[in-house]
Amino acid sequence: MTKPNLSGMCVATYRVHDDKADFAKKALSIAVGLTVGSWTDLPELRKAEMEKHLGRVVSIEEHQGDGAPGSRYADIRIAYPDINFSRDIPALLVTVFGKLSMDGKVRLIDLDVSEGFQSAFPGPKFGIQGVRDLLGVHDRPLLMSIFKSVIGHDLKGLEEQFYQQALGGVDLIKDDEILFENDETGINRRVAVCMEAARRASEQTGQKLLYAVNLTGPTSKLADQARLAISEGANALLFNVLAYGYDVLHELSADPDINVPIAAHPAMAGALYPSPHYGIAAPLLLGKLMRLAGADLVLFPSPYGSVVMPKEENLAIREMLLDESRAMRTSFPVPSAGIHPGLVPLILRDFGINSVVNAGGGVHGHPGGAAAGGQAFRQAITAAMNGVPLQTAAAEPGHEALKAAVDAWGVREV
Amino acid sequence: MTKPNLSGMCVATYRVHDDKADFAKKALSIAVGLTVGSWTDLPELRKAEMEKHLGRVVSIEEHQGDGAPGSRYADIRIAYPDINFSRDIPALLVTVFGKLSMDGKVRLIDLDVSEGFQSAFPGPKFGIQGVRDLLGVHDRPLLMSIFKSVIGHDLKGLEEQFYQQALGGVDLIKDDEILFENDETGINRRVAVCMEAARRASEQTGQKLLYAVNLTGPTSKLADQARLAISEGANALLFNVLAYGYDVLHELSADPDINVPIAAHPAMAGALYPSPHYGIAAPLLLGKLMRLAGADLVLFPSPYGSVVMPKEENLAIREMLLDESRAMRTSFPVPSAGIHPGLVPLILRDFGINSVVNAGGGVHGHPGGAAAGGQAFRQAITAAMNGVPLQTAAAEPGHEALKAAVDAWGVREV
Repeated sequence: MTKPNLSGMCVATYRVHDDKADFAKKALSIAVGLTVGSWTDLPELRKAEMEKHLGRVVSIEEHQGDGAPGSRYADIRIAYPDINFSRDIPALLVTVFGKLSMDGKVRLIDLDVSEGFQSAFPGPKFGIQGVRDLLGVHDRPLLMSIFKSVIGHDLKGLEEQFYQQALGGVDLIKDDEILFENDETGINRRVAVCMEAARRASEQTGQKLLYAVNLTGPTSKLADQARLAISEGANALLFNVLAYGYDVLHELSADPDINVPIAAHPAMAGALYPSPHYGIAAPLLLGKLMRLAGADLVLFPSPYGSVVMPKEENLAIREMLLDESRAMRTSFPVPSAGIHPGLVPLILRDFGINSVVNAGGGVHGHPGGAAAGGQAFRQAITAAMNGVPLQTAAAEPGHEALKAAVDAWGVREV
Repeated sequence: MTKPNLSGMCVATYRVHDDKADFAKKALSIAVGLTVGSWTDLPELRKAEMEKHLGRVVSIEEHQGDGAPGSRYADIRIAYPDINFSRDIPALLVTVFGKLSMDGKVRLIDLDVSEGFQSAFPGPKFGIQGVRDLLGVHDRPLLMSIFKSVIGHDLKGLEEQFYQQALGGVDLIKDDEILFENDETGINRRVAVCMEAARRASEQTGQKLLYAVNLTGPTSKLADQARLAISEGANALLFNVLAYGYDVLHELSADPDINVPIAAHPAMAGALYPSPHYGIAAPLLLGKLMRLAGADLVLFPSPYGSVVMPKEENLAIREMLLDESRAMRTSFPVPSAGIHPGLVPLILRDFGINSVVNAGGGVHGHPGGAAAGGQAFRQAITAAMNGVPLQTAAAEPGHEALKAAVDAWGVREV
């Protein structure tokens, strides 16, 4: 088979584990089976008509492994003509991994969409630059804090928690992803009181703040819910993308009325990415597809905390979100879980300035309270940006919040 | 901890693999961490207020394994108060498996929803009884055939393929799940010609037929597409549920205007169910949740074909779809892939009369063509229902179609 021209095709990369398979035969069966169905037995005239629909084997890289059962695999790349599917993520995924996902030890590890396919996706409405512009912060990583123990709180409790977090100088506050619509603290009610708390805190801190409010409920009502929240003053949204599907994020992000950044939460992602044999690799699942669907910020498990992901996967997600070769705004990587101020130099080294330091316990668990928690992070960010060791910075006057954090959690050396 | 009263709670069962973990501690951290956030450090007054939100450890079954690394696990059951989440599947899944899915080797193996939660779900609009009533067939398994190689065909090609399948006496014909909206054979155009072909075939066969047309495109337009298809005469729908999310199926099935049965396709399911350590078990993914969301028929990989699933999982899916203890219509199990007429006695033994025999290659690949393929299946079903061995039935006059199939594919003895 000659090297195909891949223009107008989306290319999927699979990792197929099999101790004995003829991978060349397997690749061909995928390329034919998931497109035209059959090929060799077609009459020549029909082949000429069908050729534009035929999938192509782009490459096969075999890895023989160490001979131990389960160690042999191949990375197989198949190109699918765009003409076979509509320009939406469900159609793309069903084509490249619908039936195939159930056919042995096969994992979808990458997906390169064509320019034509991508042209149907505006991508992030704000992206890194847009979010920075909204906040007026261009020279450092952003700082996000997370509501903690939100279930069972009343509006007054949420407002106070919000205010304390905001006082610490955080740039973004996000809802807990398990806060759903309820009578006491429904989306419009809590947006109103939290944005008022943001206003009061802003008088103290002199800075802007985005509140990513959790968008939940029936799929067909999400856009209305988003508009309602925005009409009450919401200036960002949090969304459990994988519980609803990428297409829902795509439609929300493409809606001109929903003119606020959207943060994608990775809830349910662990059902898909961790197995070496099955599922969808994290850089595709939480990187490329989230950006394509329009997420302005993407949360994923950090390599530092209790909820871990191997660091190379983290960095691959980051790369997908920041890749400048795509004609699409970039998305903020938000490595999350287990973050305390002593990790800030490491986060800066690993993820760079275009990242969001995201903390829950690291803010709320500060010995001086949530406001001191935020301050400690901001002081750590300033020190790290200036190349000042945190221990040194913590000893300086006015850095009592950082000192208390360093004493409590320590510093991870870079 | 005393045995909790589980009324008003949804109970999740997890399989957690860990060579060393204190599973009791792990269970408690799930029950607390995914609900109220923290517990032991709360003041007594606050505990009284928060108790109704607190998750409960229902049971822990430890399996020490054989001492080999990776063999130790526990099945942990946690009850979540309904009050913590709204009555929709995304909220339920994000609560019980959102963050937790990323926290080590943990797999969601079951989910028992409360009566209160279930009351928000009408379930299948037709179910087994309703689909049988539409077809007027009550005394045997149904027979479904699948369009083959639909990509690149024109309307005339689809019509002819449909007509040949219909002539064989099948009860249902389903689209291929990778046939998406396109200029040539869009949903309304192909419904019109295929339903006309169905009418013509019906004059020959004297029987009714449901055509499950593939519902695709942007999420927000699916209900309109369904109504359009129905206005053109569509009498059933096929839907790639997991590419869109259960909630979309739930909304479609609950829509009074969408008054036709919905068949759920398992595309993408293999990204979630096959790993022993991660993801969501097939009986929950393709059984319980599909039925809750309103699927009238559910396709899943059969234990007989090339796309295989262990038979005990197949039977567990079936059990979830047919469980009479739930106040909800039952759904037709449709074991699919690799089905030929020689397997019919086995299907009948394993899945019973309330199942759908679903074939693609087994219809189209018949030496006498698709019409003969359908006839062979119908003859096999009749023989199996009467306890007549297929080899015997195939030798009878008028059973040439079955004979040709048996000669081509053989018979799997029961």
